[in-house]
Amino acid sequence: MNKGRLEAFSDGVIAIIVTIMVLEMKAPEGTSWQIIKPLMPKFISYMLSFLFVAIYWVNHHHLLHTVKKVKSSIMWANMNLLFWLSLIPFATAWMGENHFEKVTVVAYAVLALLCGLSFNILQSTICKHYSDNDLLVAVGKGRWRSITAVVLYVLAIPTALFINTIAACSMFLVVSIIWLIPDKHIEEVLDNE
Amino acid sequence: MNKGRLEAFSDGVIAIIVTIMVLEMKAPEGTSWQIIKPLMPKFISYMLSFLFVAIYWVNHHHLLHTVKKVKSSIMWANMNLLFWLSLIPFATAWMGENHFEKVTVVAYAVLALLCGLSFNILQSTICKHYSDNDLLVAVGKGRWRSITAVVLYVLAIPTALFINTIAACSMFLVVSIIWLIPDKHIEEVLDNE
Amino acid sequence: MNKGRLEAFSDGVIAIIVTIMVLEMKAPEGTSWQIIKPLMPKFISYMLSFLFVAIYWVNHHHLLHTVKKVKSSIMWANMNLLFWLSLIPFATAWMGENHFEKVTVVAYAVLALLCGLSFNILQSTICKHYSDNDLLVAVGKGRWRSITAVVLYVLAIPTALFINTIAACSMFLVVSIIWLIPDKHIEEVLDNE
Amino acid sequence: MNKGRLEAFSDGVIAIIVTIMVLEMKAPEGTSWQIIKPLMPKFISYMLSFLFVAIYWVNHHHLLHTVKKVKSSIMWANMNLLFWLSLIPFATAWMGENHFEKVTVVAYAVLALLCGLSFNILQSTICKHYSDNDLLVAVGKGRWRSITAVVLYVLAIPTALFINTIAACSMFLVVSIIWLIPDKHIEEVLDNE
Repeated sequence: MNKGRLEAFSDGVIAIIVTIMVLEMKAPEGTSWQIIKPLMPKFISYMLSFLFVAIYWVNHHHLLHTVKKVKSSIMWANMNLLFWLSLIPFATAWMGENHFEKVTVVAYAVLALLCGLSFNILQSTICKHYSDNDLLVAVGKGRWRSITAVVLYVLAIPTALFINTIAACSMFLVVSIIWLIPDKHIEEVLDNE
Repeated sequence: MNKGRLEAFSDGVIAIIVTIMVLEMKAPEGTSWQIIKPLMPKFISYMLSFLFVAIYWVNHHHLLHTVKKVKSSIMWANMNLLFWLSLIPFATAWMGENHFEKVTVVAYAVLALLCGLSFNILQSTICKHYSDNDLLVAVGKGRWRSITAVVLYVLAIPTALFINTIAACSMFLVVSIIWLIPDKHIEEVLDNE
Repeated sequence: MNKGRLEAFSDGVIAIIVTIMVLEMKAPEGTSWQIIKPLMPKFISYMLSFLFVAIYWVNHHHLLHTVKKVKSSIMWANMNLLFWLSLIPFATAWMGENHFEKVTVVAYAVLALLCGLSFNILQSTICKHYSDNDLLVAVGKGRWRSITAVVLYVLAIPTALFINTIAACSMFLVVSIIWLIPDKHIEEVLDNE
Repeated sequence: MNKGRLEAFSDGVIAIIVTIMVLEMKAPEGTSWQIIKPLMPKFISYMLSFLFVAIYWVNHHHLLHTVKKVKSSIMWANMNLLFWLSLIPFATAWMGENHFEKVTVVAYAVLALLCGLSFNILQSTICKHYSDNDLLVAVGKGRWRSITAVVLYVLAIPTALFINTIAACSMFLVVSIIWLIPDKHIEEVLDNE
């Protein structure tokens, strides 16, 4: 009950983040291909970020499910995560507006990395308080995902800078696909509840 | 209890979708008829989409009511629906901005179709897990609606392309009216609960 | 429990309506009085509308509190109210943008009237289903308020057209003040619960 | 249960306030340093305000936690707080847009002061109704914070006007840091619950 508001507030912020990104795609006056074409990178950028934020929501859902009582430290670790997530619409629009130019992809990777680190901090903060929780153990077993994500985001930065922006964006996609694989440990615990 | 956040998040996203559409109608400086007139197609477009999204919310409400435990597959089927719904404000604005031009109506029909298919996928995903649920059986009996909707959206595409955009928009309205007819099966189950 | 989502969705929509109005006040580049001055009517318009929507939220809160089971008819009466409320940011911005010009004040009065009528429809729809409810009886006793509001909004239309826009806006304020007077009947019932 | 909607509505409004601020940072077309540089004051302004609103949310959470039944007076004191908080995105954008110019910093300080006073009013309104509540006593013990905040915001006004805007902004930061120190009294009560 105590954690209801923390979840509600996070849900609100994440729902808004996901939805305002679409506002960046201004509806053009005109319907010719030439007018629609510049919207394409923005659309791809939007899809990438929708998936990115959706994954955070699903994991946030699993993680907070393990919490029984909200401590101030959990609140602030959560706020920290929400702050970095709230910058995603900006990074998305910037990348889309400039057709995935090198600097914008690097900025996106840095931001994704900061989001990943913040999620790891939130995980650690929660783990410190609740070590005897089945779901939490399952979340812990799936922790290689959030660590792999961080590693891949770190690698995406030099990749975008020195090799290729498409390669870097593919690494973002790989991270998303890793997260989309259903986590058997978590599913099991949720089923037995 | 477990599904509370799924509902809250969906409510948040749908509430934002419905409300940001109104932002597309910029308040004009001036009050003459000539200045207000171009707002009319945008307003009609907004009304159409408000009704469209409102119907999804009501049906989403009935459908999720049947769910007892949230599985990852349900979460992602729901995310998929929310993604396509989140593009409605863009399609609405584009159609309103260009006075219901052919291409924009086709785009709207395609998007409506994708939303309809996503809703059907969500229904199937939920049906797979809960087959012994009275309300779900009632929702199943009303499934001809969501199938009719998909069929009419498919037909609206060639109609807009080769016949008439007003005829295509009328088909959108017909779908909405079908959904507005109270569903006796669902009402009964909800009453007996 | 069943009504939780209806409340959550309404809360979401009303929260967004209230908050996006502030987006109409674009932060100007510059700090001189001449640059800030044109913001004044927008600010007054915002304050008026914040109060207007806040009153609707408080009354919606009391009214929905009386509902035990959500029927489709209540859902749609609620959607109808939310639709007209969602146009308030547009009417607010238009009135502020054009310094409370006659036509814009009339438009605001018409919209306020439609919101008032929709609230009355929602009240009637709920009364039809629950006639044995203490709180509902109390809400019913306070119904002279929502009827007075409708009457005053009707009168505000010719007032703005033929007499004076300031007089019409004052009538909006009078309605708000009437609603701000605490309702003893409702307070009593809520206390005894 | 009764207070659920008050919390949900407040959560919605605060979530939107926090998130729409980021919309003020328009993604620029171009990636050169000269194009990104003017975004810096906006970004700092955003960080400052995110922290500001986040602190209000955490304290609002603790304070409302103490409420058992919602009275109309609490509802309106809460609405008053939300109104002033809703102006934060405007003040933030104005300050960022004009590179922390004197008048904009003063305006921010005045608004912060009004938010602080509104929070104190909400505290007093709640205290009047519930004097036998452990958490409320703990909140009361931490009241020196909200009073210090108000005092510092008052002092920030002449500081910005006659001394230095950076000094004034530092005072905003000091207030934030004071609030970030974990409150032992509240933590204890929440632990023992």
